[in-house]
Amino acid sequence: MTVDVGLIMGSQSDWPTMREAAAILDELGIGYEARIVSAHRTPDRLWDYGKTAAGRGLKVIIAGAGGAAHLPGMMASKTRVPVIGVPIQTRALSGVDSLYSILQMPRGYPVATMAIGGAANAGLMAAQMLAVSDAALAERVDAWRQALSDSIPQEPRDE
Amino acid sequence: MTVDVGLIMGSQSDWPTMREAAAILDELGIGYEARIVSAHRTPDRLWDYGKTAAGRGLKVIIAGAGGAAHLPGMMASKTRVPVIGVPIQTRALSGVDSLYSILQMPRGYPVATMAIGGAANAGLMAAQMLAVSDAALAERVDAWRQALSDSIPQEPRDE
Amino acid sequence: MTVDVGLIMGSQSDWPTMREAAAILDELGIGYEARIVSAHRTPDRLWDYGKTAAGRGLKVIIAGAGGAAHLPGMMASKTRVPVIGVPIQTRALSGVDSLYSILQMPRGYPVATMAIGGAANAGLMAAQMLAVSDAALAERVDAWRQALSDSIPQEPRDE
Amino acid sequence: MTVDVGLIMGSQSDWPTMREAAAILDELGIGYEARIVSAHRTPDRLWDYGKTAAGRGLKVIIAGAGGAAHLPGMMASKTRVPVIGVPIQTRALSGVDSLYSILQMPRGYPVATMAIGGAANAGLMAAQMLAVSDAALAERVDAWRQALSDSIPQEPRDE
Amino acid sequence: MTVDVGLIMGSQSDWPTMREAAAILDELGIGYEARIVSAHRTPDRLWDYGKTAAGRGLKVIIAGAGGAAHLPGMMASKTRVPVIGVPIQTRALSGVDSLYSILQMPRGYPVATMAIGGAANAGLMAAQMLAVSDAALAERVDAWRQALSDSIPQEPRDE
Amino acid sequence: MTVDVGLIMGSQSDWPTMREAAAILDELGIGYEARIVSAHRTPDRLWDYGKTAAGRGLKVIIAGAGGAAHLPGMMASKTRVPVIGVPIQTRALSGVDSLYSILQMPRGYPVATMAIGGAANAGLMAAQMLAVSDAALAERVDAWRQALSDSIPQEPRDE
Amino acid sequence: MTVDVGLIMGSQSDWPTMREAAAILDELGIGYEARIVSAHRTPDRLWDYGKTAAGRGLKVIIAGAGGAAHLPGMMASKTRVPVIGVPIQTRALSGVDSLYSILQMPRGYPVATMAIGGAANAGLMAAQMLAVSDAALAERVDAWRQALSDSIPQEPRDE
Amino acid sequence: MTVDVGLIMGSQSDWPTMREAAAILDELGIGYEARIVSAHRTPDRLWDYGKTAAGRGLKVIIAGAGGAAHLPGMMASKTRVPVIGVPIQTRALSGVDSLYSILQMPRGYPVATMAIGGAANAGLMAAQMLAVSDAALAERVDAWRQALSDSIPQEPRDE
Repeated sequence: MTVDVGLIMGSQSDWPTMREAAAILDELGIGYEARIVSAHRTPDRLWDYGKTAAGRGLKVIIAGAGGAAHLPGMMASKTRVPVIGVPIQTRALSGVDSLYSILQMPRGYPVATMAIGGAANAGLMAAQMLAVSDAALAERVDAWRQALSDSIPQEPRDE
Repeated sequence: MTVDVGLIMGSQSDWPTMREAAAILDELGIGYEARIVSAHRTPDRLWDYGKTAAGRGLKVIIAGAGGAAHLPGMMASKTRVPVIGVPIQTRALSGVDSLYSILQMPRGYPVATMAIGGAANAGLMAAQMLAVSDAALAERVDAWRQALSDSIPQEPRDE
Repeated sequence: MTVDVGLIMGSQSDWPTMREAAAILDELGIGYEARIVSAHRTPDRLWDYGKTAAGRGLKVIIAGAGGAAHLPGMMASKTRVPVIGVPIQTRALSGVDSLYSILQMPRGYPVATMAIGGAANAGLMAAQMLAVSDAALAERVDAWRQALSDSIPQEPRDE
Repeated sequence: MTVDVGLIMGSQSDWPTMREAAAILDELGIGYEARIVSAHRTPDRLWDYGKTAAGRGLKVIIAGAGGAAHLPGMMASKTRVPVIGVPIQTRALSGVDSLYSILQMPRGYPVATMAIGGAANAGLMAAQMLAVSDAALAERVDAWRQALSDSIPQEPRDE
Repeated sequence: MTVDVGLIMGSQSDWPTMREAAAILDELGIGYEARIVSAHRTPDRLWDYGKTAAGRGLKVIIAGAGGAAHLPGMMASKTRVPVIGVPIQTRALSGVDSLYSILQMPRGYPVATMAIGGAANAGLMAAQMLAVSDAALAERVDAWRQALSDSIPQEPRDE
Repeated sequence: MTVDVGLIMGSQSDWPTMREAAAILDELGIGYEARIVSAHRTPDRLWDYGKTAAGRGLKVIIAGAGGAAHLPGMMASKTRVPVIGVPIQTRALSGVDSLYSILQMPRGYPVATMAIGGAANAGLMAAQMLAVSDAALAERVDAWRQALSDSIPQEPRDE
Repeated sequence: MTVDVGLIMGSQSDWPTMREAAAILDELGIGYEARIVSAHRTPDRLWDYGKTAAGRGLKVIIAGAGGAAHLPGMMASKTRVPVIGVPIQTRALSGVDSLYSILQMPRGYPVATMAIGGAANAGLMAAQMLAVSDAALAERVDAWRQALSDSIPQEPRDE
Repeated sequence: MTVDVGLIMGSQSDWPTMREAAAILDELGIGYEARIVSAHRTPDRLWDYGKTAAGRGLKVIIAGAGGAAHLPGMMASKTRVPVIGVPIQTRALSGVDSLYSILQMPRGYPVATMAIGGAANAGLMAAQMLAVSDAALAERVDAWRQALSDSIPQEPRDE
């Protein structure tokens, strides 16, 4: 399976959140690689990743980060490959710090920001982007969405 | 020119913000249509737009909205075509209301959220998505980014 | 008992909050139906519910939702039956996201918003609306309020 | 015309906002009275208004207030007539203070809260409540909504 | 011992916070009465309390409340006796709702607001007010402050 | 006239706000002195002011400050004379910074915090404190409040 | 070892956070003293500490405080020795109160503010300041940073 | 004059704020260079600047940025030279976005954060850092602070 998606995160501690993106990509049969790329601790790794992303054939990058959360935005600066950002929830500021750092990018360098902790949706957004030019994947996405819709009961139940 | 991007907004009053997206699409030679689709005032228009989007060949939808700002999220519910959301700045809450409504989508229905008022970046994100399978556009995006980078002077100047 | 109130929510996970509304309606002898209507996962169900609400004789709709929380506002777009919205508390943003999405409706489509998690009050507000043209219910509401008032002790006690 | 709606506000300075509610009630042919009732400066006036509201035949109360904004909630304490609250935008806190004071009512005393500054919607919510038992008004509300919907153009225009 | 301070709160659930004020008053030998006065559930009790406060010889009122938290401000409207307000911490909004409702009083009706949950300081502020015209109490307050100051060690210690 | 109130502020730029407190004190015939005492620029002035306040016969201190706003809290540390704090509105954070710095005092050192910009109420709170042991002032306060109450018209008027 | 850094905090309860700064200073071989200096409970200790800091040879002061958090800013007022501030996380406001009080210092008295709870970084910032004129320390700082960088794995792992 | 301070900013539009830092450095006789270094538009310039900073003899870096504001934190990742960050005020979020991005740095890479818009204080903090090993500068800083202190009048004046 070709690796279409780069799934990167700033720290091992982001993985419990970010593996929900991996799970969606697995479910939809999309090839990806998972890497730790810390904007501050491994800036050169970030540089290399960004510079080689398009050439290596990556079509989407999903980047999760918390706090100052510079990874998604700096990656967006280094490559034209679309970057989907996932703000990781934080202790003191609940992820609003992560959100603002990822979201408020200046003109020229967008990051497609997901909800705080919304890693599963990052996987789906990647899939939807890829489905634009992949009819088979488009069908799998449609089926996934239909199944989700079908799973909703008519009435709430006590538990 | 084929229409690849649907550029929709909740109200005429969103246009001064949203036409920055149109300007970018024009600059990069991407075909688009601009429409007013109000989630609350014209819900059936929203329904039709969403249901026909993929079939009509739209590859990306850019949706701007302010306040309760349900348009991007509801559009994401009705079509698998990727939706980029632009939170419009508002009077009392500065667009934080628009932001939360657009961003905090539940599992299954992502909206690629841009900065508050970040319509130009919505155009660029659309371009980057399309460039994944359009080498000529990729080159134009690269050139646009290079030109932006080249425009930055070394030193600040008094004005 | 006729069904006067539609008690809807976006997800099964909203039921622990929303059944406090049901409890009040039960206490006050008001007929209601409880349904799951997800704005994003079952948009057509939302459409149908809204279009038929007045015709089926519903007099009030109580809608609970969390996060992007588009259900109350979209329902308000589809029917003239008054919609009472209950913002569900959320993990990262404590329900402020739900609140803003429900509250900040544009001109034309009000949602009568309750406190974050305030489902019991949604039941009472529905009762007060119905009591305007139902003298017997008005008396039951008055008695309920009087009993609440009478239950307040004069002095705090250590526990 | 009978007076169905009490339109009250804490201060003369709230009138530029609150008269949008009056305008809607005028448009829809609903009888109302406009009064200044300050929770803090005229508490006895508030008491009297609340105690006599139901007996005088008021069916809905619209209450606008800013800052500490105790008027809507205290009125809700004094009468079973449904109270719609309008948080007035304020200078330092943009109306978030007004909003929290009006919204976060304890169990037993709901206030149907509108958007910050959302007085027009207060008028519409009052109309929708009254329309439940007034078929002619229901038709006028439907027509008002239809006209609003019909006014939305298909495309944005430069101005 | 004469009752100089009225220690009131909106609900039994506020007592675990408010008894810290009582403890300070006990420590400093100040007479007080503790009462539950709910602004919404027992508005007439609030009215009577406020109207009789000065006549009964109360010199300070400490009022704790959470959420919409109208008690301190309404009490300030009904009596010239100084009111000290204590915002009780709340679940969804951490007491920022309580704070804004207590703090943002309009011109004419100040509430001396304490930190969120700051009931002990309410007791001390009451003592400081009374100490202005009670030299013996002033000495006890000074001693209390000196003892607090003396209790601070020079160095932190591991525990 | 004896000087009962020390009216201090961190900067000349606070005077346009703080002179509303002075105006109230003038109206009610209360003696005061107005001083600039900057916590950071003139810390020794603050020290001296605090240490001599009680001895000089000051009965209340009103302290206005903006931003980090350490003046009211540090003054409360240096004297048992009750300190009323006025958070000055600021440019970037609207006075929420001033508010938190003044309000969130630790156990032992309360500041009676007023609304953001609420200097007039600081004057009134000072008057209410002094009126506890000054019957003539109590009457003037009552009259002031009555006049304010009497000034409220019954109906709003277009302007 | 000479004492280059004064590590002060407002309360024993800040030590669990602040000892992370001590740990970094220990690791990097920097001499320091740890002291409790409460701005409000021991203002004279603060005064003395500030007045003697430069003379005693302190080159950096690290000050942690929570809530009103006046310690870092008042210390910055009393000495030219650079002050690094650490906002301690708080219960109701998550440390945003501490942050604003420490950060929003007026012109003339900067505090080098760290992240909420960011005591380890305070130790590193102190080290970086000292390393400017201490080549051996600069090498140790570089090695510490390199080791941190080297510790980052390439891929996340399930745990 | 040797260049001790690197004064960098993300954009020409930051200069009206950042030149207040330059003014302070000029006043205190500190050599500096002013450069535009955009984290996103000129990432390689940022890389080079960071990698050569210590070698070129820079002793402090002042970095101003707004919105996502990645410049200060990325610079802190690339050099051990202490970085002082200035959050630039922004339109929609008042600089809270800038603040969180600059402040909330992870363990290992501190940024000494100033108040929103606090560029003058960045200049002073740089001076205080340099004064630790420059007695002549220390005297100039002391004189600057003394002059500021001496400029504060005793009483406010009407203007």
